Order: sequence, then structure tokens, then C-alpha cells
Amino acid sequence: MSLLTETVAAIEPVSSEAISAAELRQSMLTKPLGSLGALEELGTRLCGMYGQCPPPMPEPVTIAVFAGDHGVHAQGVSPWPQEVTTQMVGNFLSGGAVINAFGRQVGAQVVVIDIGVASEVPPTPGLQGRKIAAGTADMTKGPAMTLTQVLAAIDVGIDVARDAVTAGSRLLVTGDMGIANTTAPAALISVLTGMDVADVTGRGTGIDNPMLAHKVSVIETAIRVNKVSPTDDPLAVLAAVGGFEHAGVVGYLLAAAALRTPVILDGVIACSAALVARAIAPAAADYWIAGHRSVEPGASAALAHLGLAPLVDLQLRLGEGSGAALAVPLVQVSARILREVATFDSAGVSNKE
Amino acid sequence: MSLLTETVAAIEPVSSEAISAAELRQSMLTKPLGSLGALEELGTRLCGMYGQCPPPMPEPVTIAVFAGDHGVHAQGVSPWPQEVTTQMVGNFLSGGAVINAFGRQVGAQVVVIDIGVASEVPPTPGLQGRKIAAGTADMTKGPAMTLTQVLAAIDVGIDVARDAVTAGSRLLVTGDMGIANTTAPAALISVLTGMDVADVTGRGTGIDNPMLAHKVSVIETAIRVNKVSPTDDPLAVLAAVGGFEHAGVVGYLLAAAALRTPVILDGVIACSAALVARAIAPAAADYWIAGHRSVEPGASAALAHLGLAPLVDLQLRLGEGSGAALAVPLVQVSARILREVATFDSAGVSNKE
Repeated sequence: MSLLTETVAAIEPVSSEAISAAELRQSMLTKPLGSLGALEELGTRLCGMYGQCPPPMPEPVTIAVFAGDHGVHAQGVSPWPQEVTTQMVGNFLSGGAVINAFGRQVGAQVVVIDIGVASEVPPTPGLQGRKIAAGTADMTKGPAMTLTQVLAAIDVGIDVARDAVTAGSRLLVTGDMGIANTTAPAALISVLTGMDVADVTGRGTGIDNPMLAHKVSVIETAIRVNKVSPTDDPLAVLAAVGGFEHAGVVGYLLAAAALRTPVILDGVIACSAALVARAIAPAAADYWIAGHRSVEPGASAALAHLGLAPLVDLQLRLGEGSGAALAVPLVQVSARILREVATFDSAGVSNKE
Repeated sequence: MSLLTETVAAIEPVSSEAISAAELRQSMLTKPLGSLGALEELGTRLCGMYGQCPPPMPEPVTIAVFAGDHGVHAQGVSPWPQEVTTQMVGNFLSGGAVINAFGRQVGAQVVVIDIGVASEVPPTPGLQGRKIAAGTADMTKGPAMTLTQVLAAIDVGIDVARDAVTAGSRLLVTGDMGIANTTAPAALISVLTGMDVADVTGRGTGIDNPMLAHKVSVIETAIRVNKVSPTDDPLAVLAAVGGFEHAGVVGYLLAAAALRTPVILDGVIACSAALVARAIAPAAADYWIAGHRSVEPGASAALAHLGLAPLVDLQLRLGEGSGAALAVPLVQVSARILREVATFDSAGVSNKE
């Protein structure tokens, strides 16, 4: 049995007993019922994921940054040179990137995985060298990846989640790095939601109107050349118009669900991977939390299809896992409410008349 | 010179030099300019408040919970019995309330001030006994407070902010407790913004439609009986239709500004106090950060008048400082960006072409 098959087979539904217990407990705590809004729903969901009420504290936290390059970069979909992927991997490893600062803020460990960076990345402490290939192929000329490569990249993501949970992590966060890596998500989201490419394609880290129009036409070409459609096997869609880091996140999301460990989705890369992963294993989606609303329109479209409401909305469009990292304290505090707040009875507080 | 006069006189404008330095620095860090959205603007604002770039880390953090009671409770504007204020003060002091759990999450100290609780609160470690009176008078029969009481309550807030900053706090958070304490804010916000009472009155911790309609009419009566108008002295408006905890927060906000210390506004109690405080000292408003968008419509109306965009929007309506506490990590991370993220030059990362 392949690692993917084994992982999917291990995914169990969230616990309805723990959810019921959490709903009852929310009504007994010293706060008006519902007064903590989305945090009450989130805390209740956590109980379902962990299978216990109150839930354990969602810590330690691992942020996995999957880094890869993209053949479609040659089509001029980004103003950033491709070598920035490698340079930023170096920045992550020396602790100088935004995700490192955010990780320190929320007490999370950042792990960096070379899953398909174009250049050689020298072995460095903290780097997981799991390169499938030196970047994907250009999706406008044929599939970005072979099916074998996709499965290998998914296995990398599964391994990363397993290793993190084995080491003690009780909350996972998705992260990514790859110049031009918002192009694949727009293609994936368009195919998997049936929405027009133009409606789910964004400016990535910031492109002007002519480059945005060009990016849309490049994605339309890729979808046409690869003849992908919503009825195709999701792995085939991922191979045709995905990327290594997207495939890695697919494995990471599925393994987290199999390990009953909540995972916070970052932006459009994670949201597109989540659509693929849900198509593979629908029950896995109950273990995912939408970290933030990225500026990328495709992220909002995917979250709507996933039925997930984001926790943070601060107009971020960086990637790296930054938006999801900001949601870590919110996830933790929603567990704390159920774990730490006194009940009306225990605190001797009168309830509403 | 009174403590209030002295405090207002000490408020200086934020530093335009530090803001300019921060804007330049934002463009040099290894992220596309603007890709961290509202956090970039917030980090830049922090530099202006502290008068230095990069800013110091906004820690330690103090959450001050001002607790008081309200004569208008007798008019039936809340389904909760008045003794819950006292009971919840006990809950805060024993660490069992939501704000205690949130404070532990974000590493903040919670201080509790009896500024006007109706019952006697026995001396307890952690309690600051600064009671002005055993609750305000019923604002539908005349002024809720005398001007002497308002000035005394403002002085309490000034003292609390000064003590916290003297003890090392570099970030303050507003908090409040008081059954029926969303009635005064609706009155204050209506008078100070010119909006209709019905448009700024909310359900507080959760009231039904008949009680909401009654609450609106009670507030309209209070405004009519006290003959308050937007052109009145803000202290007179506060005395007529405010509360002790609202006045305490006014002093706290003004003192924070005088001490060049950012302060995060919680919900509608803090937002109404901020309108009063800005009317007293317009320059103080540059030191305030909107923590969250409360469900209370008056909070959004006040924030719009203050020109502040909230950081968190999770449908909270609890009070205690809970929504503002959630914003603490966001404020801290916005400082970390400027303090810790490498520049393109230092990290050897290529900039956009």
C-alpha cells in the first residue's frame, strides 16, 4: 500500500461526541453564550479534531515551509527573478525572513523543505533536502509534473507532518516559498471550482495590470494545453497545473487529518492544495482551519468552496505561512477558553435572568 | 494644575521623523513592499508613537479592567442581575474569567480596578480599590455622575496607566466590567457623533428585540432629561450619560498618550471613551490602536469617527478587554517586522526586476 493510500485510509471523521460535549461546556462557562463569536465555534471544532473536550493545548506548533520553483516562470508571470526562491530559503535558514519573525512571535518552530528548488541548496542545519526535481516543467508546454513526481512530493508532505507530530507538535501550519507559485493555484482553483481563470487570478506579490492580464492568458493556455477538466482525477489535475510545494502541502494536509492534528491553512497555495486534498479525502477537510483571508482572489474562492471562514483579515499577500502564523494564538486561545475559563457554578456567578 | 490638565499638556504629537524612517525601512525588508498589509502600517505607526525606528518590542503588556455599576440598570436594560459585576470581579481576581485566559495566552498582566462597583468588594491581592461611588446614578433621572466624580474617575485611569508604564509596560490594553455598561456608550456615541440612538445601540451581552427597543428609549430619555448636545463640554457629556469605568478609560487613554505608550482599544466601552478623550485632546488619538470590531454597532460607528481600522473581527461581544487582548500578538509582530526581518542587502536577496 502506498504512503498516500495508507494515509487516506487512516483519516477518521472528527468526534461528534467531543463536539457535543464542547457545545454544552460553552454554555456553562462564565460568559454569555456566543459572546466569543468565532472563537467558540473554533474551540468546539478543535474538540472534534482532537477527539476530547476540553481539547489539549494546541502546542508545540510547527510551520512547514515547502520551497519549489516553477517552469512557468519562463512565461513572465512574476517580476521577481527565479533565484529569489533559493535566496529566500537561505534567509529562512538564517532566521531573517518574515516567517522566522512570526514564528518567534507565536512560539512556533519553522522547518524548511527543499521540495523542488531550481538551484542546489547547500545542506544547512534546519533544511530538509527532499528535492523531487529542479523546478517543475513549464505547464504551458505540457504537465508541470509527472504523476510519479506528484506522488513523491505528496509523500514528502506526509513525512513532514508525521515527523512534526511524532516530535510532539499538536498544531501544524502550512507555509510555502516559490517565485511564480501563485500561478499554479489560480489554475488549480479555476479547474476545481469551475470558476473563470480571470476571477481567481491575483497579483501574487504584486504585479501590474499588463502582467496580470498576461498571467491570466498563460494560465488559460496551460489549462487548454493539458486538457484538464473538473472531472479529471485530482492527482492528474495537480500534475498538470500544480507545483511541488502545492503537492507537498496536499500530503501535509492529509497526514495531519490522519494524525488528528489541526492544521492552519495559509494563503492561496494552501487553499488550492486543500481543494485537491479534499477531492482525494473529503473527511480530511474537518481538520483544517482557515488562517487568514489573503489578498489573492483565488484564496477567498477556495475557502468559500471549502466552507471555511478565515480568522485574520489584514490584507496580507506574502506567503511563507505568514498569515496562518498570525492565527496560531487565536487557535490556542479558543482551546484555552474550554480548558481554563470557570463555569458559572464553580465561580459562583449568577446566570442571565 | 489638575492631574488631567497636566496629562493633556504632556501629550506630544507622534514623531514624523520616526514614521518616515519606518516607511523607508519597510521598503528595504525582504518582502514585497505592502505585502504585510495592515501590519506594515501598524508597525510604522508604532514607530511614530514610541518616537524611534525600529520600535521597542511592545512588551510587557498590561490589561486594565475597570469595573463599575450603573444606576440605569434599574430601568431594565440588561437581563443580568447587577451583582454579576461583583461576582465577575471575584472571577477576575481568582483567574477564572475569559480575560485571565486571554491574558495568559498573550503574556499580559491583568489588573482589576474597582472604580465604582455597587457592592463592597473585599480587599484581595490584585485588586485596586479605587471606588468613586457604589455605582452611578440613574441617567434617566439626571446626570449619572457629578463633574467631581468624573474628574476623580479620570484621575484613577491616569494613575493606572502611569503605574503600569512606571512598572515597565510598553503596551496597554483597555478592559471593563459592568452589568448594563453598554448603555452609556450608546448615549455617548450618539451625542458625540450625531448619529441616531437606534443606530448605535446594540444587544450588549445579548438582549432580545423588546429589550433592545426599550434600551433605545431609555437612552433617548437620558439624553433628553440631561439636555446634552454635541456642542457641550465633553466632560459634561461624560458626567451626564457616562459611567465610572468609561471615565476611567478616558484617563487611561490620555495618560498612555502622554507617556508615548500605545494602547489597544477593546469594544464599545473603550470606543466611546476614546471619542470623549479625543474631544479633550485630539493629538492623543494617534497613540490608540483599534483592537477588534465588536458586534456592538456603536463600536464600529465610533471607530469610523476615530479613523481607526480594527485588527481582529471575530464577532466578539464579551468585553473585559477580550477583543483587544487578541490584538496584542498582532501589535507585537508588527514591531518585530521592523526589528527582526533582514533587508534585501543584508540577506543577499535580489529585489524585484
